[in-house]
Amino acid sequence: MARILITSGPTRQYIDPVRYLTNASSGRMGAALAAACLRLGHEAVVVSGPVEVEYPSAARVIPVISTEEMLVAAQDAFEKCDGLIGAAAPCDYRPQQVNPSKIAKTGEPLLLELYETDDVVATLAAKKGKRWVVGFALETEDHRLRALAKLERKRCDLMVSNGVEAMHALDNQVEILDPVGEVIQHASGPKESVAEEILQIIQQRLIKVN
Amino acid sequence: MARILITSGPTRQYIDPVRYLTNASSGRMGAALAAACLRLGHEAVVVSGPVEVEYPSAARVIPVISTEEMLVAAQDAFEKCDGLIGAAAPCDYRPQQVNPSKIAKTGEPLLLELYETDDVVATLAAKKGKRWVVGFALETEDHRLRALAKLERKRCDLMVSNGVEAMHALDNQVEILDPVGEVIQHASGPKESVAEEILQIIQQRLIKVN
Repeated sequence: MARILITSGPTRQYIDPVRYLTNASSGRMGAALAAACLRLGHEAVVVSGPVEVEYPSAARVIPVISTEEMLVAAQDAFEKCDGLIGAAAPCDYRPQQVNPSKIAKTGEPLLLELYETDDVVATLAAKKGKRWVVGFALETEDHRLRALAKLERKRCDLMVSNGVEAMHALDNQVEILDPVGEVIQHASGPKESVAEEILQIIQQRLIKVN
Repeated sequence: MARILITSGPTRQYIDPVRYLTNASSGRMGAALAAACLRLGHEAVVVSGPVEVEYPSAARVIPVISTEEMLVAAQDAFEKCDGLIGAAAPCDYRPQQVNPSKIAKTGEPLLLELYETDDVVATLAAKKGKRWVVGFALETEDHRLRALAKLERKRCDLMVSNGVEAMHALDNQVEILDPVGEVIQHASGPKESVAEEILQIIQQRLIKVN
């Protein structure tokens, strides 16, 4: 039995108290992964951005808003976990500062200088030690090539590659890549069954049976 | 009996196929307004951005994503309506162009030049003729002053002023202002009862009883 950390959902990077940058991640893949973990007898800890989806009641859920908060909560939870599945879609850009009041329209263009947020999966994987890390890559082109590059750069043990059509959808279509660039599994269908297949691969390849 | 157009929810302005600017509007106030319209015997037409909330099944709902789409759909629907309640929180800024593929991280800051979107309520009110227009103002400071300025600039017949704490909440606390700047009603509580009070005021002041 393993304790598995799952990051899930989008994050928000506010530019003022009202407006923010985000993406359409629904948390459904994360919820399906948590359910699959539990079904296979593992513990599930979920660090989730703001979503409407319901996580399994047996999962421990830590809600966050921003990428910075997700990183801090995930680093903290990862201390006591055996592995990480990075299924979240954290917002990659943040403004230099959040405007303290709602930005009023002036008729002029608004120039936003955005900085990259720290990468949650890469930061955790850099100090993973004997723990395993499974990443997700969502690309609009060159899916496999970019997913493999991300696997290497982020020091993942497996990378799940999917397309933008996965966002906010009930179904998903993924390839699971290993560190030598081999596609070890194709999975498609409802996110629940895709999650089950991903967990089976993780069990076979990464979880040490005592 | 009147046919009432309600704009509801947030809109999204994509910067690439994955990321967008938006806000936390839930559509709950719009759904409560639609229900109140129907309860009082009126017709409700709802132009709604992406929300999880369910609108009353007797309302006609036109789903949209961006502010531009909301404006086009609302202009079209307004042709056959007696009045507009602008309860949506359309995204006020759009990038000059949407990047055709997901913007890849480079380690460098991302400079975004954002342009103001056309104001949905102001555009419809400019050609309202004998129809009435009720706007919503959400401000983080100087609520009443700014709400009144918006009422005048957008040529509204009434302005509902609320704070940022209304967003994604179940309750709301509003002031209803008339064109001479008088606060004609305070309402607070569940959005359903606030919506009922707003509709009562609209009936008394704006809907001509045949």
